[in-house]
Amino acid sequence: MTRQQLTEQIFKKRSYLCVGLDTDPEKIPSHLKGHPDAMFEFNKAIIDATHDLCVAYKINIAFYEAHGVKGWDILERTLRYIPEGIFTIADAKRGDIGNTSAQYARAFFETIPFDSITVAPYMGEDSVKPFLGHPGKWAIVLGLTSNPGAEDFELQQYADGDLLYEKVLKTVSRWGDTGNTMFVIGATQASSFRRIREITPEHFYLVPGVGAQGGSLQEVSDIALIKDCGLLVNASRAIIFASGKEDFASEARVVARKYQQEMAIYLGKV
Amino acid sequence: MTRQQLTEQIFKKRSYLCVGLDTDPEKIPSHLKGHPDAMFEFNKAIIDATHDLCVAYKINIAFYEAHGVKGWDILERTLRYIPEGIFTIADAKRGDIGNTSAQYARAFFETIPFDSITVAPYMGEDSVKPFLGHPGKWAIVLGLTSNPGAEDFELQQYADGDLLYEKVLKTVSRWGDTGNTMFVIGATQASSFRRIREITPEHFYLVPGVGAQGGSLQEVSDIALIKDCGLLVNASRAIIFASGKEDFASEARVVARKYQQEMAIYLGKV
Repeated sequence: MTRQQLTEQIFKKRSYLCVGLDTDPEKIPSHLKGHPDAMFEFNKAIIDATHDLCVAYKINIAFYEAHGVKGWDILERTLRYIPEGIFTIADAKRGDIGNTSAQYARAFFETIPFDSITVAPYMGEDSVKPFLGHPGKWAIVLGLTSNPGAEDFELQQYADGDLLYEKVLKTVSRWGDTGNTMFVIGATQASSFRRIREITPEHFYLVPGVGAQGGSLQEVSDIALIKDCGLLVNASRAIIFASGKEDFASEARVVARKYQQEMAIYLGKV
Repeated sequence: MTRQQLTEQIFKKRSYLCVGLDTDPEKIPSHLKGHPDAMFEFNKAIIDATHDLCVAYKINIAFYEAHGVKGWDILERTLRYIPEGIFTIADAKRGDIGNTSAQYARAFFETIPFDSITVAPYMGEDSVKPFLGHPGKWAIVLGLTSNPGAEDFELQQYADGDLLYEKVLKTVSRWGDTGNTMFVIGATQASSFRRIREITPEHFYLVPGVGAQGGSLQEVSDIALIKDCGLLVNASRAIIFASGKEDFASEARVVARKYQQEMAIYLGKV
Protein backbone atom coordinates (compact mmCIF):
# COMPACT_ATOMS: atom_id res chain seq x y z
CA MET A 1 0.00 0.00 0.00
CA THR A 2 1.41 3.38 -0.99
CA ARG A 3 1.47 6.41 1.29
CA GLN A 4 -1.23 8.06 -0.80
CA GLN A 5 -3.50 5.01 -0.53
CA LEU A 6 -2.97 4.87 3.22
CA THR A 7 -3.70 8.57 3.63
CA GLU A 8 -6.88 8.28 1.56
CA GLN A 9 -8.12 5.53 3.87
CA ILE A 10 -7.29 7.63 6.93
CA PHE A 11 -9.28 10.65 5.78
CA LYS A 12 -12.13 8.52 4.45
CA LYS A 13 -12.53 6.64 7.73
CA ARG A 14 -11.48 9.67 9.83
CA SER A 15 -9.26 7.30 11.77
CA TYR A 16 -5.59 6.53 12.22
CA LEU A 17 -6.31 3.64 14.52
CA CYS A 18 -4.32 0.43 14.28
CA VAL A 19 -5.74 -2.58 16.10
CA GLY A 20 -3.09 -4.92 17.48
CA LEU A 21 -3.90 -8.62 17.24
CA ASP A 22 -1.76 -9.78 20.19
CA THR A 23 -3.97 -12.82 20.47
CA ASP A 24 -3.04 -14.69 23.65
CA PRO A 25 -5.11 -17.88 23.88
CA GLU A 26 -4.96 -17.65 27.66
CA LYS A 27 -6.73 -14.28 27.58
CA ILE A 28 -9.48 -14.97 25.08
CA PRO A 29 -13.01 -15.35 26.47
CA SER A 30 -13.63 -18.68 28.16
CA HIS A 31 -16.56 -19.60 25.89
CA LEU A 32 -14.11 -19.66 22.95
CA LYS A 33 -11.34 -21.59 24.70
CA GLY A 34 -12.75 -25.02 23.80
CA HIS A 35 -13.13 -24.11 20.12
CA PRO A 36 -10.76 -26.12 17.88
CA ASP A 37 -9.79 -22.93 16.05
CA ALA A 38 -10.14 -20.48 18.95
CA MET A 39 -7.39 -17.99 18.04
CA PHE A 40 -8.64 -17.58 14.48
CA GLU A 41 -12.30 -17.34 15.55
CA PHE A 42 -11.30 -14.66 18.05
CA ASN A 43 -9.38 -12.68 15.40
CA LYS A 44 -12.24 -13.04 12.93
CA ALA A 45 -14.75 -11.64 15.43
CA ILE A 46 -12.42 -8.73 16.32
CA ILE A 47 -11.83 -7.91 12.64
CA ASP A 48 -15.56 -8.10 11.86
CA ALA A 49 -16.27 -5.74 14.75
CA THR A 50 -13.58 -3.13 14.09
CA HIS A 51 -12.57 -3.04 10.40
CA ASP A 52 -14.65 0.04 9.57
CA LEU A 53 -13.14 1.96 12.49
CA CYS A 54 -9.45 1.30 11.95
CA VAL A 55 -7.04 1.70 9.03
CA ALA A 56 -4.50 -0.90 10.06
CA TYR A 57 -4.09 -4.24 11.82
CA LYS A 58 -0.82 -5.08 13.52
CA ILE A 59 -0.26 -8.77 14.03
CA ASN A 60 2.16 -9.49 16.85
CA ILE A 61 4.06 -12.42 15.37
CA ALA A 62 5.33 -13.71 18.73
CA PHE A 63 1.85 -14.72 19.80
CA TYR A 64 1.57 -16.95 16.72
CA GLU A 65 5.13 -18.33 16.71
CA ALA A 66 4.52 -19.46 20.28
CA HIS A 67 2.28 -22.14 18.74
CA GLY A 68 4.69 -23.32 16.06
CA VAL A 69 3.30 -24.63 12.78
CA LYS A 70 -0.29 -24.25 14.00
CA GLY A 71 0.37 -20.63 14.91
CA TRP A 72 1.77 -19.85 11.46
CA ASP A 73 -1.30 -21.34 9.88
CA ILE A 74 -3.52 -19.08 12.04
CA LEU A 75 -1.30 -16.11 11.14
CA GLU A 76 -1.70 -16.75 7.41
CA ARG A 77 -5.47 -17.19 7.63
CA THR A 78 -5.84 -14.08 9.81
CA LEU A 79 -3.93 -11.97 7.31
CA ARG A 80 -6.07 -13.27 4.45
CA TYR A 81 -9.23 -12.45 6.42
CA ILE A 82 -8.35 -8.74 6.75
CA PRO A 83 -10.42 -6.78 4.19
CA GLU A 84 -8.79 -5.07 1.20
CA GLY A 85 -7.72 -1.49 1.76
CA ILE A 86 -6.54 -1.99 5.34
CA PHE A 87 -2.82 -1.58 6.02
CA THR A 88 -1.26 -4.70 7.52
CA ILE A 89 1.74 -4.76 9.84
CA ALA A 90 3.84 -7.80 10.75
CA ASP A 91 5.04 -6.76 14.19
CA ALA A 92 8.10 -8.96 14.08
CA LYS A 93 11.05 -6.73 15.08
CA ARG A 94 13.33 -8.55 12.64
CA GLY A 95 16.85 -7.56 11.57
CA ASP A 96 19.99 -9.56 10.69
CA ILE A 97 22.89 -9.53 8.24
CA GLY A 98 21.89 -8.72 4.67
CA ASN A 99 21.29 -12.19 3.24
CA THR A 100 19.20 -13.10 6.29
CA SER A 101 17.13 -9.90 6.39
CA ALA A 102 16.37 -10.58 2.73
CA GLN A 103 14.84 -13.91 3.80
CA TYR A 104 12.73 -12.17 6.46
CA ALA A 105 11.56 -9.69 3.81
CA ARG A 106 10.55 -12.63 1.67
CA ALA A 107 8.71 -14.23 4.62
CA PHE A 108 6.63 -11.15 5.42
CA PHE A 109 6.31 -9.40 2.05
CA GLU A 110 5.81 -12.42 -0.22
CA THR A 111 5.04 -15.71 1.54
CA ILE A 112 2.69 -13.96 3.96
CA PRO A 113 2.05 -10.73 2.09
CA PHE A 114 1.92 -8.01 4.73
CA ASP A 115 2.22 -4.34 3.72
CA SER A 116 4.91 -3.74 6.33
CA ILE A 117 7.17 -5.23 8.97
CA THR A 118 8.70 -3.78 12.12
CA VAL A 119 12.50 -3.84 12.01
CA ALA A 120 15.18 -3.61 14.74
CA PRO A 121 18.03 -1.25 13.73
CA TYR A 122 20.85 -2.46 16.03
CA MET A 123 22.87 -4.17 13.26
CA GLY A 124 22.81 -1.14 10.95
CA GLU A 125 22.37 -0.45 7.27
CA ASP A 126 22.74 -3.87 5.66
CA SER A 127 20.24 -5.28 8.18
CA VAL A 128 17.56 -2.71 7.28
CA LYS A 129 18.08 -2.16 3.54
CA PRO A 130 16.67 -5.53 2.41
CA PHE A 131 13.28 -4.38 3.72
CA LEU A 132 13.35 -1.26 1.51
CA GLY A 133 12.87 -1.10 -2.23
CA HIS A 134 9.81 -3.37 -2.41
CA PRO A 135 7.12 -1.26 -4.10
CA GLY A 136 4.20 -0.59 -1.76
CA LYS A 137 5.96 -2.28 1.17
CA TRP A 138 7.26 -0.58 4.30
CA ALA A 139 9.95 -1.04 6.93
CA ILE A 140 8.77 0.28 10.29
CA VAL A 141 12.03 0.75 12.18
CA LEU A 142 12.29 0.91 15.97
CA GLY A 143 13.00 4.47 17.08
CA LEU A 144 12.01 5.23 20.66
CA THR A 145 9.96 2.40 22.12
CA SER A 146 7.22 2.51 24.75
CA ASN A 147 8.75 0.12 27.29
CA PRO A 148 10.83 0.87 30.42
CA GLY A 149 13.90 -0.71 28.78
CA ALA A 150 14.08 2.24 26.36
CA GLU A 151 16.17 3.89 29.10
CA ASP A 152 18.94 1.29 28.84
CA PHE A 153 20.27 2.10 25.36
CA GLU A 154 17.80 4.11 23.23
CA LEU A 155 17.83 7.11 25.59
CA GLN A 156 21.58 7.07 26.26
CA GLN A 157 23.57 9.93 24.80
CA TYR A 158 26.27 9.53 22.19
CA ALA A 159 29.44 11.63 22.31
CA ASP A 160 28.16 13.85 19.48
CA GLY A 161 25.11 14.81 21.54
CA ASP A 162 22.52 12.58 19.90
CA LEU A 163 20.62 10.05 21.94
CA LEU A 164 20.80 6.58 20.35
CA TYR A 165 17.21 6.76 19.06
CA GLU A 166 17.88 10.22 17.56
CA LYS A 167 20.88 8.84 15.72
CA VAL A 168 18.71 5.96 14.51
CA LEU A 169 16.07 8.38 13.17
CA LYS A 170 18.66 10.57 11.44
CA THR A 171 20.61 7.66 9.97
CA VAL A 172 17.78 5.33 8.95
CA SER A 173 15.77 8.14 7.35
CA ARG A 174 18.66 8.57 4.88
CA TRP A 175 18.54 4.90 3.81
CA GLY A 176 14.93 4.98 2.63
CA ASP A 177 12.32 7.66 2.08
CA THR A 178 9.00 8.78 3.55
CA GLY A 179 7.19 6.38 1.22
CA ASN A 180 8.89 3.19 2.43
CA THR A 181 10.09 3.88 5.97
CA MET A 182 8.12 4.53 9.16
CA PHE A 183 9.35 4.64 12.75
CA VAL A 184 8.04 3.05 15.94
CA ILE A 185 7.65 5.81 18.53
CA GLY A 186 6.02 4.87 21.83
CA ALA A 187 3.08 6.96 23.03
CA THR A 188 4.54 6.80 26.54
CA GLN A 189 7.39 9.01 25.25
CA ALA A 190 5.17 12.05 24.56
CA SER A 191 7.72 14.48 26.01
CA SER A 192 10.10 13.54 23.19
CA PHE A 193 7.61 13.81 20.32
CA ARG A 194 8.39 17.45 19.51
CA ARG A 195 12.07 16.66 19.08
CA ILE A 196 11.22 13.56 17.04
CA ARG A 197 9.01 15.56 14.65
CA GLU A 198 11.88 18.03 14.18
CA ILE A 199 14.23 15.22 13.13
CA THR A 200 11.71 13.42 10.91
CA PRO A 201 9.10 16.02 9.92
CA GLU A 202 7.43 13.95 7.21
CA HIS A 203 7.66 10.32 8.29
CA PHE A 204 4.75 8.22 9.45
CA TYR A 205 5.07 6.88 12.99
CA LEU A 206 3.58 3.69 14.32
CA VAL A 207 2.68 4.62 17.88
CA PRO A 208 2.12 1.81 20.37
CA GLY A 209 1.62 2.40 24.07
CA VAL A 210 -1.84 3.98 24.07
CA GLY A 211 -4.23 2.02 26.28
CA ALA A 212 -2.70 -0.74 28.43
CA GLN A 213 0.69 1.02 28.52
CA GLY A 214 -0.75 4.42 29.53
CA GLY A 215 0.18 6.81 26.67
CA SER A 216 -2.10 9.74 25.78
CA LEU A 217 -3.70 9.86 22.33
CA GLN A 218 -4.39 13.57 22.68
CA GLU A 219 -0.84 14.50 23.59
CA VAL A 220 0.66 12.44 20.77
CA SER A 221 -1.82 13.80 18.22
CA ASP A 222 -1.38 17.43 19.28
CA ILE A 223 2.34 17.27 18.68
CA ALA A 224 2.87 14.75 15.90
CA LEU A 225 -0.07 14.99 13.44
CA ILE A 226 0.98 16.44 10.08
CA LYS A 227 -0.91 17.43 6.92
CA ASP A 228 -1.37 13.89 5.60
CA CYS A 229 -1.70 12.54 9.17
CA GLY A 230 1.66 10.83 9.59
CA LEU A 231 0.45 8.68 12.48
CA LEU A 232 -0.84 5.18 13.05
CA VAL A 233 -1.77 4.82 16.71
CA ASN A 234 -1.98 1.26 17.90
CA ALA A 235 -4.03 -0.20 20.72
CA SER A 236 -3.92 -3.93 21.32
CA ARG A 237 -5.01 -5.24 24.71
CA ALA A 238 -7.23 -2.19 25.43
CA ILE A 239 -9.37 -3.15 22.43
CA ILE A 240 -9.17 -6.89 21.94
CA PHE A 241 -9.44 -7.76 25.62
CA ALA A 242 -11.91 -4.96 26.49
CA SER A 243 -14.20 -7.70 27.74
CA GLY A 244 -13.36 -11.27 28.71
CA LYS A 245 -16.92 -12.44 28.11
CA GLU A 246 -19.18 -13.32 25.18
CA ASP A 247 -19.56 -9.63 24.36
CA PHE A 248 -15.80 -9.27 23.68
CA ALA A 249 -16.28 -8.25 20.04
CA SER A 250 -18.96 -5.64 20.66
CA GLU A 251 -16.97 -4.26 23.60
CA ALA A 252 -13.87 -4.14 21.37
CA ARG A 253 -15.97 -2.11 18.93
CA VAL A 254 -17.03 0.29 21.69
CA VAL A 255 -13.39 1.01 22.59
CA ALA A 256 -12.28 1.22 18.94
CA ARG A 257 -15.11 3.63 18.19
CA LYS A 258 -14.10 5.84 21.11
CA TYR A 259 -10.57 6.05 19.70
CA GLN A 260 -11.91 6.67 16.19
CA GLN A 261 -14.21 9.46 17.32
CA GLU A 262 -11.41 11.17 19.21
CA MET A 263 -9.15 10.80 16.17
CA ALA A 264 -11.81 12.33 13.89
CA ILE A 265 -11.66 15.49 16.00
CA TYR A 266 -7.86 15.75 15.81
CA LEU A 267 -7.88 15.00 12.06
CA GLY A 268 -10.39 17.81 11.57
CA LYS A 269 -7.77 20.26 12.79
CA VAL A 270 -4.84 19.37 10.49
CA MET B 1 21.99 -27.60 28.29
CA THR B 2 24.09 -26.28 31.19
CA ARG B 3 27.47 -24.65 30.78
CA GLN B 4 29.15 -27.69 32.32
CA GLN B 5 27.43 -30.05 29.89
CA LEU B 6 28.41 -27.84 26.96
CA THR B 7 32.02 -27.65 28.11
CA GLU B 8 32.20 -31.43 28.55
CA GLN B 9 31.07 -31.90 24.96
CA ILE B 10 33.63 -29.37 23.74
CA PHE B 11 36.59 -31.11 25.40
CA LYS B 12 35.30 -34.58 24.50
CA LYS B 13 34.94 -33.71 20.83
CA ARG B 14 37.91 -31.31 20.91
CA SER B 15 35.76 -28.88 18.99
CA TYR B 16 33.91 -25.62 19.53
CA LEU B 17 32.48 -25.65 16.05
CA CYS B 18 28.91 -24.58 15.43
CA VAL B 19 27.45 -25.47 12.04
CA GLY B 20 24.93 -22.95 10.73
CA LEU B 21 21.96 -24.38 8.92
CA ASP B 22 21.19 -21.35 6.72
CA THR B 23 19.46 -23.65 4.31
CA ASP B 24 18.61 -21.68 1.17
CA PRO B 25 16.66 -23.90 -1.25
CA GLU B 26 18.14 -21.96 -4.16
CA LYS B 27 21.65 -22.95 -3.11
CA ILE B 28 21.19 -26.62 -2.37
CA PRO B 29 22.61 -29.09 -4.91
CA SER B 30 20.55 -29.42 -8.05
CA HIS B 31 20.04 -33.18 -7.67
CA LEU B 32 18.07 -32.44 -4.46
CA LYS B 33 16.02 -29.58 -5.83
CA GLY B 34 13.25 -31.79 -7.19
CA HIS B 35 12.89 -33.69 -3.91
CA PRO B 36 9.51 -33.04 -2.23
CA ASP B 37 11.28 -32.50 1.10
CA ALA B 38 14.51 -31.02 -0.21
CA MET B 39 15.36 -28.64 2.65
CA PHE B 40 14.93 -31.32 5.30
CA GLU B 41 16.83 -33.94 3.26
CA PHE B 42 19.66 -31.46 2.85
CA ASN B 43 19.76 -30.69 6.58
CA LYS B 44 19.62 -34.38 7.43
CA ALA B 45 22.60 -35.15 5.21
CA ILE B 46 24.58 -32.22 6.65
CA ILE B 47 23.82 -33.29 10.23
CA ASP B 48 24.72 -36.92 9.48
CA ALA B 49 28.03 -35.78 7.99
CA THR B 50 29.07 -33.30 10.70
CA HIS B 51 27.52 -34.15 14.08
CA ASP B 52 30.64 -35.83 15.48
CA LEU B 53 32.78 -32.81 14.54
CA CYS B 54 30.67 -29.98 15.96
CA VAL B 55 29.16 -29.21 19.34
CA ALA B 56 26.34 -26.96 18.16
CA TYR B 57 23.93 -26.34 15.30
CA LYS B 58 22.62 -22.85 14.66
CA ILE B 59 19.39 -22.76 12.71
CA ASN B 60 18.87 -19.45 10.92
CA ILE B 61 15.13 -19.01 11.42
CA ALA B 62 14.72 -16.54 8.52
CA PHE B 63 15.48 -19.24 5.96
CA TYR B 64 12.58 -21.31 7.32
CA GLU B 65 10.10 -18.47 7.91
CA ALA B 66 10.58 -17.51 4.27
CA HIS B 67 8.55 -20.64 3.49
CA GLY B 68 5.72 -20.01 5.95
CA VAL B 69 3.94 -23.00 7.51
CA LYS B 70 5.98 -25.46 5.46
CA GLY B 71 9.20 -23.83 6.67
CA TRP B 72 8.18 -24.11 10.31
CA ASP B 73 7.45 -27.79 9.81
CA ILE B 74 10.95 -28.28 8.35
CA LEU B 75 12.40 -26.28 11.23
CA GLU B 76 10.71 -28.48 13.83
CA ARG B 77 11.76 -31.72 12.14
CA THR B 78 15.33 -30.48 11.70
CA LEU B 79 15.61 -29.64 15.39
CA ARG B 80 14.26 -33.07 16.35
CA TYR B 81 16.80 -34.73 14.04
CA ILE B 82 19.79 -33.19 15.82
CA PRO B 83 21.34 -35.85 18.11
CA GLU B 84 21.18 -35.54 21.90
CA GLY B 85 24.11 -33.75 23.50
CA ILE B 86 24.48 -31.13 20.78
CA PHE B 87 23.75 -27.51 21.70
CA THR B 88 21.01 -25.98 19.56
CA ILE B 89 20.67 -22.31 18.69
CA ALA B 90 17.60 -20.59 17.25
CA ASP B 91 19.26 -17.75 15.36
CA ALA B 92 16.21 -15.52 15.49
CA LYS B 93 17.44 -12.09 16.75
CA ARG B 94 14.18 -11.59 18.67
CA GLY B 95 13.41 -8.88 21.24
CA ASP B 96 10.25 -6.92 22.10
CA ILE B 97 8.36 -5.56 25.11
CA GLY B 98 8.19 -7.98 28.04
CA ASN B 99 4.91 -9.76 27.36
CA THR B 100 5.94 -10.30 23.73
CA SER B 101 9.49 -11.49 24.41
CA ALA B 102 7.89 -13.99 26.81
CA GLN B 103 5.94 -15.38 23.84
CA TYR B 104 9.13 -15.65 21.77
CA ALA B 105 10.78 -17.48 24.68
CA ARG B 106 7.86 -19.88 24.67
CA ALA B 107 8.15 -20.36 20.89
CA PHE B 108 11.85 -21.25 20.96
CA PHE B 109 12.32 -22.82 24.42
CA GLU B 110 9.08 -24.83 24.67
CA THR B 111 7.13 -25.23 21.42
CA ILE B 112 10.34 -25.83 19.46
CA PRO B 113 12.71 -26.72 22.28
CA PHE B 114 16.03 -25.11 21.36
CA ASP B 115 18.74 -24.69 24.01
CA SER B 116 19.21 -21.04 23.12
CA ILE B 117 18.01 -18.10 21.06
CA THR B 118 19.80 -15.05 19.71
CA VAL B 119 18.34 -11.81 21.10
CA ALA B 120 18.53 -8.16 19.92
CA PRO B 121 19.20 -5.76 22.83
CA TYR B 122 17.93 -2.45 21.38
CA MET B 123 14.77 -2.30 23.53
CA GLY B 124 16.59 -2.91 26.83
CA GLU B 125 16.08 -4.90 29.99
CA ASP B 126 12.43 -5.93 29.81
CA SER B 127 12.99 -7.15 26.23
CA VAL B 128 15.87 -9.46 27.24
CA LYS B 129 14.85 -10.68 30.71
CA PRO B 130 12.05 -13.03 29.55
CA PHE B 131 14.75 -15.14 27.85
CA LEU B 132 16.63 -15.57 31.13
CA GLY B 133 15.64 -17.71 34.08
CA HIS B 134 14.73 -20.83 32.08
CA PRO B 135 16.94 -23.61 33.52
CA GLY B 136 19.38 -24.92 30.93
CA LYS B 137 18.29 -22.31 28.36
CA TRP B 138 20.38 -19.41 27.07
CA ALA B 139 19.92 -15.92 25.67
CA ILE B 140 22.65 -15.14 23.13
CA VAL B 141 22.56 -11.35 22.96
CA LEU B 142 23.91 -9.31 20.04
CA GLY B 143 27.13 -7.57 21.05
CA LEU B 144 29.39 -6.63 18.16
CA THR B 145 28.17 -8.19 14.94
CA SER B 146 30.17 -9.31 11.91
CA ASN B 147 28.43 -7.20 9.27
CA PRO B 148 29.41 -3.80 7.80
CA GLY B 149 26.36 -2.19 9.45
CA ALA B 150 28.02 -2.66 12.86
CA GLU B 151 29.64 0.73 12.14
CA ASP B 152 26.31 2.56 12.09
CA PHE B 153 25.32 2.21 15.75
CA GLU B 154 27.23 -0.57 17.57
CA LEU B 155 30.62 1.08 17.07
CA GLN B 156 29.47 4.63 17.81
CA GLN B 157 30.74 6.15 21.03
CA TYR B 158 28.50 7.20 23.89
CA ALA B 159 29.20 10.37 25.89
CA ASP B 160 30.62 8.31 28.77
CA GLY B 161 33.26 6.79 26.49
CA ASP B 162 31.71 3.40 25.89
CA LEU B 163 30.90 2.27 22.39
CA LEU B 164 27.28 1.09 22.11
CA TYR B 165 28.28 -2.59 22.00
CA GLU B 166 30.51 -2.13 25.07
CA LYS B 167 27.59 -0.64 26.98
CA VAL B 168 25.47 -3.58 25.84
CA LEU B 169 28.06 -6.08 27.13
CA LYS B 170 28.39 -4.28 30.47
CA THR B 171 24.68 -3.78 30.99
CA VAL B 172 23.32 -7.10 29.72
CA SER B 173 25.91 -9.12 31.65
CA ARG B 174 24.39 -7.70 34.85
CA TRP B 175 20.90 -8.94 33.94
CA GLY B 176 21.85 -12.60 33.69
CA ASP B 177 24.92 -14.65 34.50
CA THR B 178 27.59 -16.65 32.69
CA GLY B 179 25.36 -19.73 32.82
CA ASN B 180 22.40 -18.24 30.91
CA THR B 181 23.81 -15.41 28.79
CA MET B 182 26.19 -15.50 25.82
CA PHE B 183 27.08 -12.73 23.38
CA VAL B 184 27.29 -12.64 19.60
CA ILE B 185 30.72 -11.30 18.66
CA GLY B 186 31.63 -11.32 14.97
CA ALA B 187 34.92 -12.94 13.96
CA THR B 188 35.47 -10.05 11.54
CA GLN B 189 35.91 -7.83 14.62
CA ALA B 190 39.09 -9.56 15.84
CA SER B 191 40.79 -6.26 16.67
CA SER B 192 38.14 -5.67 19.35
CA PHE B 193 38.28 -9.13 20.94
CA ARG B 194 40.87 -8.22 23.58
CA ARG B 195 38.72 -5.35 24.85
CA ILE B 196 35.62 -7.58 24.74
CA ARG B 197 37.33 -10.28 26.87
CA GLU B 198 38.27 -7.61 29.40
CA ILE B 199 34.63 -6.53 29.75
CA THR B 200 33.20 -10.06 29.84
CA PRO B 201 36.04 -12.33 30.95
CA GLU B 202 33.90 -15.41 31.61
CA HIS B 203 31.06 -15.32 29.10
CA PHE B 204 30.69 -17.65 26.15
CA TYR B 205 30.64 -15.95 22.75
CA LEU B 206 28.88 -17.15 19.67
CA VAL B 207 31.25 -16.11 16.90
CA PRO B 208 29.88 -15.90 13.37
CA GLY B 209 31.85 -14.52 10.48
CA VAL B 210 34.48 -17.23 10.01
CA GLY B 211 34.39 -18.58 6.47
CA ALA B 212 32.21 -16.73 3.97
CA GLN B 213 32.53 -13.44 5.88
CA GLY B 214 36.33 -13.66 6.19
CA GLY B 215 37.09 -13.79 9.93
CA SER B 216 40.15 -15.68 11.23
CA LEU B 217 39.64 -18.65 13.53
CA GLN B 218 43.22 -18.46 14.76
CA GLU B 219 43.07 -14.79 15.67
CA VAL B 220 39.76 -15.17 17.54
CA SER B 221 40.93 -18.28 19.37
CA ASP B 222 44.29 -16.78 20.38
CA ILE B 223 42.60 -13.87 22.08
CA ALA B 224 39.27 -15.14 23.33
CA LEU B 225 39.68 -18.79 24.41
CA ILE B 226 39.38 -19.22 28.19
CA LYS B 227 39.84 -22.19 30.57
CA ASP B 228 36.46 -23.79 29.81
CA CYS B 229 36.67 -22.64 26.17
CA GLY B 230 34.10 -19.82 26.19
CA LEU B 231 33.69 -19.89 22.41
CA LEU B 232 31.33 -21.33 19.87
CA VAL B 233 32.63 -20.49 16.41
CA ASN B 234 30.03 -20.72 13.68
CA ALA B 235 30.48 -21.42 10.01
CA SER B 236 27.42 -21.67 7.80
CA ARG B 237 27.87 -21.25 4.06
CA ALA B 238 31.54 -22.32 4.15
CA ILE B 239 30.46 -25.75 5.38
CA ILE B 240 26.96 -26.45 4.10
CA PHE B 241 27.60 -25.10 0.61
CA ALA B 242 31.21 -26.35 0.35
CA SER B 243 30.10 -28.23 -2.75
CA GLY B 244 27.04 -27.64 -4.90
CA LYS B 245 27.12 -31.19 -6.21
CA GLU B 246 26.15 -34.69 -5.05
CA ASP B 247 29.20 -34.79 -2.77
CA PHE B 248 27.91 -31.79 -0.74
CA ALA B 249 27.69 -33.74 2.53
CA SER B 250 31.13 -35.32 2.31
CA GLU B 251 32.62 -31.97 1.27
CA ALA B 252 30.83 -30.32 4.22
CA ARG B 253 32.50 -32.94 6.40
CA VAL B 254 35.93 -32.14 4.94
CA VAL B 255 35.56 -28.45 5.81
CA ALA B 256 34.06 -29.17 9.25
CA ARG B 257 36.92 -31.56 10.01
CA LYS B 258 39.46 -28.92 9.03
CA TYR B 259 37.90 -26.50 11.49
CA GLN B 260 37.70 -29.21 14.18
CA GLN B 261 41.33 -30.20 13.77
CA GLU B 262 42.45 -26.59 14.01
CA MET B 263 40.27 -26.12 17.10
CA ALA B 264 41.75 -29.23 18.75
CA ILE B 265 45.18 -27.57 18.56
CA TYR B 266 43.97 -24.32 20.15
CA LEU B 267 42.02 -26.22 22.84
CA GLY B 268 45.17 -28.15 23.69
CA LYS B 269 46.79 -24.88 24.74
CA VAL B 270 44.19 -23.57 27.22
